[in-house]
Amino acid sequence: MNRTAAYAEYRAEHFAWSCDAGVATLTLNRPERKNPLTFASYAELRDLFRGLAYAGDVDAVVLTGAGGNFCSGGDVHEIIGPLTRMTMPELLAFTRMTGDVVKAMRACPQPIVAAVDGVCAGAGAMLALASDLRFGTAAARIAFLFTRVGLAGADMGACSLLPRVIGHGRAAELLFSGRAIDGDEALTWGFFNRLCATGDVLSQAQAFARTLADGPTFGHAMTKAMLHAEWAMGLDEAIDAEAQAQAICMQTGDFRRAYEAFAAKRAPAFEGD
Amino acid sequence: MNRTAAYAEYRAEHFAWSCDAGVATLTLNRPERKNPLTFASYAELRDLFRGLAYAGDVDAVVLTGAGGNFCSGGDVHEIIGPLTRMTMPELLAFTRMTGDVVKAMRACPQPIVAAVDGVCAGAGAMLALASDLRFGTAAARIAFLFTRVGLAGADMGACSLLPRVIGHGRAAELLFSGRAIDGDEALTWGFFNRLCATGDVLSQAQAFARTLADGPTFGHAMTKAMLHAEWAMGLDEAIDAEAQAQAICMQTGDFRRAYEAFAAKRAPAFEGD
Amino acid sequence: MNRTAAYAEYRAEHFAWSCDAGVATLTLNRPERKNPLTFASYAELRDLFRGLAYAGDVDAVVLTGAGGNFCSGGDVHEIIGPLTRMTMPELLAFTRMTGDVVKAMRACPQPIVAAVDGVCAGAGAMLALASDLRFGTAAARIAFLFTRVGLAGADMGACSLLPRVIGHGRAAELLFSGRAIDGDEALTWGFFNRLCATGDVLSQAQAFARTLADGPTFGHAMTKAMLHAEWAMGLDEAIDAEAQAQAICMQTGDFRRAYEAFAAKRAPAFEGD
Repeated sequence: MNRTAAYAEYRAEHFAWSCDAGVATLTLNRPERKNPLTFASYAELRDLFRGLAYAGDVDAVVLTGAGGNFCSGGDVHEIIGPLTRMTMPELLAFTRMTGDVVKAMRACPQPIVAAVDGVCAGAGAMLALASDLRFGTAAARIAFLFTRVGLAGADMGACSLLPRVIGHGRAAELLFSGRAIDGDEALTWGFFNRLCATGDVLSQAQAFARTLADGPTFGHAMTKAMLHAEWAMGLDEAIDAEAQAQAICMQTGDFRRAYEAFAAKRAPAFEGD
Repeated sequence: MNRTAAYAEYRAEHFAWSCDAGVATLTLNRPERKNPLTFASYAELRDLFRGLAYAGDVDAVVLTGAGGNFCSGGDVHEIIGPLTRMTMPELLAFTRMTGDVVKAMRACPQPIVAAVDGVCAGAGAMLALASDLRFGTAAARIAFLFTRVGLAGADMGACSLLPRVIGHGRAAELLFSGRAIDGDEALTWGFFNRLCATGDVLSQAQAFARTLADGPTFGHAMTKAMLHAEWAMGLDEAIDAEAQAQAICMQTGDFRRAYEAFAAKRAPAFEGD
Repeated sequence: MNRTAAYAEYRAEHFAWSCDAGVATLTLNRPERKNPLTFASYAELRDLFRGLAYAGDVDAVVLTGAGGNFCSGGDVHEIIGPLTRMTMPELLAFTRMTGDVVKAMRACPQPIVAAVDGVCAGAGAMLALASDLRFGTAAARIAFLFTRVGLAGADMGACSLLPRVIGHGRAAELLFSGRAIDGDEALTWGFFNRLCATGDVLSQAQAFARTLADGPTFGHAMTKAMLHAEWAMGLDEAIDAEAQAQAICMQTGDFRRAYEAFAAKRAPAFEGD
C-alpha cells in the first residue's frame, strides 16, 4: 500500500505533536498568547496534513490548544501587521496558504476531532470548522471575527463550510457580526458534537478518535472522501458515486472480518485494509 | 395524462402494500427479523417506486415497518454474507441497485412519509432518509451503522442526504461512528418532523399523507421535483427554474379552483390537474 | 468608486422608505390588508434592490411591515385573480419578476435585516427568507402557503433557500403542507436569528443594521457576495475563491485602519473602503 510514511514520530517545529498507537494529538502551544497562528505555523500545518495522506501509522488526529484555549487565530503582530504592508501577490500567497491548510485537512484520510476550550477565534475557528467533528466545553468562545479587523467573512472557506454546519441564516449572522457563541449555543446549533467538562474535553476527543482508529479506517477514509467529493454534486450523481465507493469497501478485509465476527458472535477486529 | 397505470391494487411480493383512496401504505413485514431487506425486496422496492411515476391512483405513500420496528437494513445472512464472496462487477450491481431504490424514491411524484418506530438501521435508515418527511416515536433508534460492518458511511447517498437534513457536523459524527440516535434527538435535529406516541405514528403519518393526497397533487409533485433538481444548483439558476415551474402550476385547474373557492368563501376541492 | 447613486432620499411609490445615516428602512405599508404585494410593488422592489448596487449612501437595509404584520404575500384580488386568466408568456413574465426580486436582494451589497412580526406568508415569507438575517417576534406566523392556492412550494427560490436555512426535512414539511410556524419554532430552527418583543423588533433590527453600517462595509459586501457565489461550489473551489476575495479585502483602508487602531489600543473607525 502507499501509506508507508512514518508520522507517529514526527517532530513538529511550531506546535506539539504526539502519537499514541495511531491516534495523533496536535497541540497548538503558545498558551501565553492563546495559541496564535503565524506564517510558519500555517505552513507547517499545511505540510503536515498533506503528508498525512501517506502516513501508514496515523489513523485519527485530535486537534487542540494548550493552556485552556484552542486558538486565537492569526497573530496581530506577526501576521496582521505585515499583511497591511504587502503587495497583492504577497497577500494572495498568504490567503492561498491558509486556504491550503483547510484543503489539506479535508483531503487527508484521517478523521480530525477538534477539542475546543476557551478562545476559538478567527483562523482558529476555521481550524475547528475544518475538522470533521468538534468536542467542546461550555467555556468555549467561538468567533469568526474577520469583520472585526475590517475583512470579509470569506476566509479559508468559511462561507461554504459554516452554512453547511449550522445553517445559512445562523452562519450569515456570525460572519457579518463577528459575534462569539459559547459552548451551549455551539452544541444547540450542531457546531459542537459533544459538550464536555473543561478537564475532560481532550481525553474525550482522544477516546473518540481511538474508537475511530480501532475501526475500519479504510472505510472511514472513504466516508471522509465522499463527504468532501459530494459537496456540490447532484443527489443522483452522489448516489452513483457512493455505489462505486461502497463496492470498493466491500472488497476490503475489514468487511469480511466484520461478517465473520458477526457469524461467530464475537466483536470484529479491524485492520484497516 | 400519462399517469394511467393502476397501483392501488398492486400485489407486493416482498412487503405489504395497501391503498386507501390514493394514500398507499408500504409495510416492510418480516417482523420476526425486524424487517430486513433482501436482494429481492430491494429490487421490488426499486421497481415499485419507478412504476409510481405512472400511477394515476396513488397520490401519497406512507412507508413503515411491521411489529414495532421500521427496518434493520440489509440482512446479515441473506445479503452481507453473500456480498463478502462477490466479484467487483457483482458488488457494483448490488450497490447500484440499492442506490436506484433511493433515486426512484426521490424521482416518483408522490410525497413519501416514513412512519418510524423501533429499529431504523443501516439501509433501513437510508429508506427513512430518502423519504420526504419522517414521523417517529421516542423509542425509535436510528443508526447509519455501515461502519460497524467495516464499510464506509457512503451508502445509497448518505453523505449527500444526511448533511442536508441534520447539518454537516452531526452527519459526520453519525456516519463515522455508527452511533444510534433516539426519537428525541432525531426531532431536535430535524431528522424527524414530528414525534408521535408509538401507537399513533402510523395513523398520524397516514393522516398527513391524506392531507397531501387531498391537496394539489400536481403542485406537490412539482415541489418534490424541484427540491431534487435544485440539490446542486446555483441560487440564481434555482430561482429561474422555479419561475418556469410555478408558471406551469399557474395553468392548472387546481390554481383556478383555489382562487374561485377563495372568492366564494369556501374550501377548495383540488383535483390534481 | 462606482457606488455614487443617491438612495437615501429615494421616494418610494408602493411602500415606505427612509434612511438614517446609511441605514435604510423599507416598510411594506398597506396595513389594512396586512401589507400584500402587488404587480407594481414587486416591480418597484426589484428596481430598488437592483439600484442599491450603486448606492453610495446606503450601507444596510431593514425590511419590515406596518401595523403589526410583515407581509401577507401576493394579493388575492390584485394578483391571484388576474394570474388565473393569463397566458403562459404573461405568467412567466410574472414569476420571473418575483424571482428577480429575490435575485436583486441577494445581489445588492447591503446586508438586509428583516424585522418580522405577525403575518409573514407566501411571497412575504420569501422576502424574509431572501433577507440576510431575520429578527422576529413570538407572535410572528411564517407560512410558505403556496400549496394552499394550488401551487408548488417552488416559488422565488424557496426549494433552494429554505433547506439551507432550516434543513431539508423541515423545509419539505413546510413547503408540502403550507403549515405556519410561530416565532419560537422559527428561532429554534434557525429561521430567526433573534426573538424580540413585538414593540422592539424593528428597533433591534435597525440597531443591528447600524452596527453593520458602521463596520467594514466593503468587507460585508464581499461576505454577502461570497455566500451567494459559493451556493453550489465545491469546497476546494470555494476556498480558492475566498483566497482571492480576502486578499482583495486586505488591500482596503479598513483593514489597515483596524490594525492601526488595535496597535494604538483604540476602537477602529471604518470607512467602507
